[in-house]
This record gives sequence, C-alpha cells and structure tokens, in this order.
Amino acid sequence: MAETVLYQRVALIGLGHIAGSMALALRRKGLVGEIVGTARSAETRAVAAEIGLVDRVVETAAEAVEGADLVVLAVPVGAMGAVAAEIAPALKPGATVTDVGSVKRTVVEAVAPLMPEGVHFVPGHPLAGTEHSGPRSGFAELFENRWWLLTPIEGTDPEATARLRRLLEAFGANVDEMDVDRHDLVLAVVSHTPHLIAYTMVGVADHLRRVTHDEVIKYSATGFRDFTRIAASDPTMWRDVFLTNKDAVLDILGRFTEELFTLQRAIRMGDGEMLHAYFTETREIRRGIIQAGQDTDAPDFGRGKKP
Amino acid sequence: MAETVLYQRVALIGLGHIAGSMALALRRKGLVGEIVGTARSAETRAVAAEIGLVDRVVETAAEAVEGADLVVLAVPVGAMGAVAAEIAPALKPGATVTDVGSVKRTVVEAVAPLMPEGVHFVPGHPLAGTEHSGPRSGFAELFENRWWLLTPIEGTDPEATARLRRLLEAFGANVDEMDVDRHDLVLAVVSHTPHLIAYTMVGVADHLRRVTHDEVIKYSATGFRDFTRIAASDPTMWRDVFLTNKDAVLDILGRFTEELFTLQRAIRMGDGEMLHAYFTETREIRRGIIQAGQDTDAPDFGRGKKP
Repeated sequence: MAETVLYQRVALIGLGHIAGSMALALRRKGLVGEIVGTARSAETRAVAAEIGLVDRVVETAAEAVEGADLVVLAVPVGAMGAVAAEIAPALKPGATVTDVGSVKRTVVEAVAPLMPEGVHFVPGHPLAGTEHSGPRSGFAELFENRWWLLTPIEGTDPEATARLRRLLEAFGANVDEMDVDRHDLVLAVVSHTPHLIAYTMVGVADHLRRVTHDEVIKYSATGFRDFTRIAASDPTMWRDVFLTNKDAVLDILGRFTEELFTLQRAIRMGDGEMLHAYFTETREIRRGIIQAGQDTDAPDFGRGKKP
Repeated sequence: MAETVLYQRVALIGLGHIAGSMALALRRKGLVGEIVGTARSAETRAVAAEIGLVDRVVETAAEAVEGADLVVLAVPVGAMGAVAAEIAPALKPGATVTDVGSVKRTVVEAVAPLMPEGVHFVPGHPLAGTEHSGPRSGFAELFENRWWLLTPIEGTDPEATARLRRLLEAFGANVDEMDVDRHDLVLAVVSHTPHLIAYTMVGVADHLRRVTHDEVIKYSATGFRDFTRIAASDPTMWRDVFLTNKDAVLDILGRFTEELFTLQRAIRMGDGEMLHAYFTETREIRRGIIQAGQDTDAPDFGRGKKP
C-alpha cells in the first residue's frame, strides 16, 4: 500500500537488525524515495548489497548522508559521537537526524552539539528487537504494535518531530514522547537491568556446565531458556548500554540485590508465607502487561503447541 | 490414533495445569481405560466436571485411587506427603504411583516410606508447563518434545518404570532417568534460581511503578516482559519448590550474586572489554540450546511477526 512519500532520501548509518528492519518497512510502505545505506564493516556492506537491503550501499557515513532528508544513526551507542562528527559537515540543511540508541542522555550529549544550524536532531528509541543481529536479521513487521520513544530536546523543531512520528507510525509503531533522563531510568528498569541479570544467570550456568556436562543445556526447558534468549543479544550494543546508562543501571541493580537478599533470607528461614505473598503480587504485574497489549496470553508464546 | 492401553484405570490427584494436560493427552492417544480425577478445591472439581476433563471426578484422593493401576500425584510438592498418607491404605496391589513434582529428594522422602509393599513408586518430573494454572489451562501437546525426568529409587521395579516410560513417550516426551539429588541440583540451575530472579526483578519493577506510574508496564517490550511471564507462575507451587530445594537454590544464588557483583563492578569501573567478552560467551550457550532442539530460532519466538 502506497502512502505519502515523507522523505525523498533516507540514509541509514549502520545496517544491523534495526536499520535492516527499517529499510524493509520503508520500502514496503513506499514512504521514501531512495534509501542509501552504509556500515563500518565491509562484510556487512557486501551482504546488504547482495540481498538488496537498500537502494544504494556506499562506503562512508559522510557519503551516505549527502542530500538525505532523513538520517538514521543505527550504530551502537558508543559510536554515535564519532559518526555524528563524521557526517556533520555533509548534512543537508533542513535535514532531520534521528538515532535508535537504547540510551538517550549519552547520545544527546555526544550528538546534539555537533549538529549544524538548521539540521533537526530528534533522538529516538524503538522498543523492539530480537536476539538476532546483522543485516540479514531484519523484518518489516518488527515495529508493529511496539513503542518507539522520541525524546526531543530543547529547541527541537516540532514540525521535524511530527514528520518523523508519521513515518514511525506508518511502520505500525506506537510513538510516545518522553523526557531524556526519564527514558534512561525507565529503560534501566524494563530492559537494561533484566538483560544484565539474564547475562549473569547464563554465566553461572556456564560455570556449572563444566561440572554437570551438558545437562544444563539439555534440560533448559523452562525458565532458563528465556534467559538465554535475552543473553544472546548483541554484545557490543549491550556493552555500550551498560557503560553509558551506568548510574541508572547501578541504582536499579542495588534495589534488585536488596530485594533478592530479602527473598533469599525467606528461603533460608523457611518463610513460606512471605514467598507466597510475593509471588502472588508479581503475578498481577504480568496481568497488567497482557492487558496493556504488550504480549500474548498464549501459553508459552504458543511454543508448547509446536515445539 | 489408538495405541495399546497401558493402564486400565488412571487416577489423577490434583487437576491443575500438568494433570489437565495429561488427561487430555491420555484421552487423545487412547492410552488408558478410565481416567478418574480429584482435587482438593471444590471449585476445581466443579470446573473439571463441567468441561469433562476426566471420565469421573470424585471428592477424595482415597476414593480416586481405588482400583487404579496408575496414580499420578500432581499436587504442590509440599502436599505430596499428606496425599500419600491418605491414599496409601486404598492403593491397589501392583499399582504404580508417580508424581510430577519439581523437586525430587523431598518428595521421595515424604512419599516412599508410606507406599505399601507391592506398590511401585516411580518419582517423575515433566520439564514442561507454562505460566498458566488451573483445570482449564491444560493442552494435550504440552509434553511434546519436552523432557520428562524419572528418578527411580532403590528397589524400584524396572518393569513398572518401563511401562510408565512408554506412557510418557506416547505423550511425545523425551524420557531420561536421573539420580534424585543430581536432579535437584540441575533443576536449581536451569529452573528454580531463574524463577526466583525473575520474581525479584518483577518485584523491583513493581516498587518503581509507584514512582514511574504505568511506564514500567507500558514499555515492558523487551527483556522485562519475559521475566514477567516466568514470574506469573503458580505461587503455591513455587513457594514449595524454594522451601524444599533450599540447599541447592541457596548454593546457586550464592554463585549468582558473586557473578553479578563482578559484572556490576565492571560497569562501575567502565571495563567494556570484560563486559563484551562476557556477553559473547553467553551467546554461545544460547546457540547450544538451539542446537539441542529445546527452543526455536524464530526471531522473538515469532512474536515480532504477529504481535
């Protein structure tokens, strides 16, 4: 279905899971004229060219942004500053620049000061993604019914934000605007700390695997399996998330440890009443998420039915 | 498809998620003559009767096991001893008794001494289940391609074990035999501790929810959402798991905390190299699980495609 062309030329910097999915969604919806893409790795560029992910693959970010009306920074958070410095002189006056980083304060501090007068920087973060990465892993439906948070900063042109929002909504995303620091705190709770915990538990299991041979993998059926999915996410992206959202993550980790020790003590003391009450409360949160439409109620995500 | 009738009469004690799924699988495969069921709660019995989950619903466990060739104890681990005491005098000579408890040492200690001479007790544990519970939540395919561990004890009749194994294999389960204590350690790693951690993280988020309103639920899209699924499991079942597999869970929790503090320190010190190396290793474990066929490689369990 053709919609209005919102941007004549879009430049995707980085051709991983998110940018790849954006390219497919952009093309399917007929939302843009031309899609130009680049990636730091020659291998990624070669794959993108081979599978025709974008209309034109170029070698450098500076080249990619030439004449682009929308520039998407889809690189790890730690690389945003360097990319912004590289593209700044080549940006078209009036262009909109957005990013898809999981942390916003660091990106705003690294990118905003480098943007030339007349270029509109609208920081963003799609709450979507899978444990897969790379140029072959994208799919056009990734953003459907998922949140895409925009964290406009002081002086952001409302019209530039509004146009970007229309694009994201055309992907099927639900767009919300949010304060930069609030974003980083909320994400530390719902995403960053859970990921660190999953990484940790999978690491513990790995140590024990050397004792229990392959039993940990063999019998991963419940609980642990979901942790390994989370812990399979892109290492570079997550390293950068923890290094750049350090304060919020350390805060939530502190709360987590306190809470864990409380439950651990209840187990040690045999306090069944406390455990039962706690587990009953957490169940309610799950119900809230189902009601908010952010997950399916199908048993085991339907995996039980077709293993 | 009709297979050989392996037991003329099966008694299901407890009519929750697991027993309900067994009832549906037993009937679909034509593996038994009659299925009798009971549950402690009158409401559960009424629902089971209403939906025709079993052939006959009776009021007490003692009544249910009368003339049964196979008795399945599908109650929380903490209730196994009391049920065993109630049914012991009513068990048919030559009958097989099994259970589906997530912890095996405690169940063996509570149940085995009460079994009359000539009754075969074969402890078991299906590594299957969803976050749903109750008599309406079962489905016949729950055990397909999932492990079902049997932990036969000294003096268990091999023929009784072999027949039970045939039944479970007819459900589509992969059956393994395992030492009682090894079972409890492995499960502490792959299931019990991950569940406790998920409960904890969801509890932390709940405290913060009072600060951040509904944002935690609204933006749960990645990471946290999987935790809430795990943390929505049956509170009574999980209370009993932690109280009865206390030593192994506390051991693994200790290792987990050490490991978490190591990662937390790396974040605080800005040690990106350590974080990247750690996250790369955990990715390998995930690959092992995919290869072992215990999960699907579909992005986001396919949820991304049809949110």
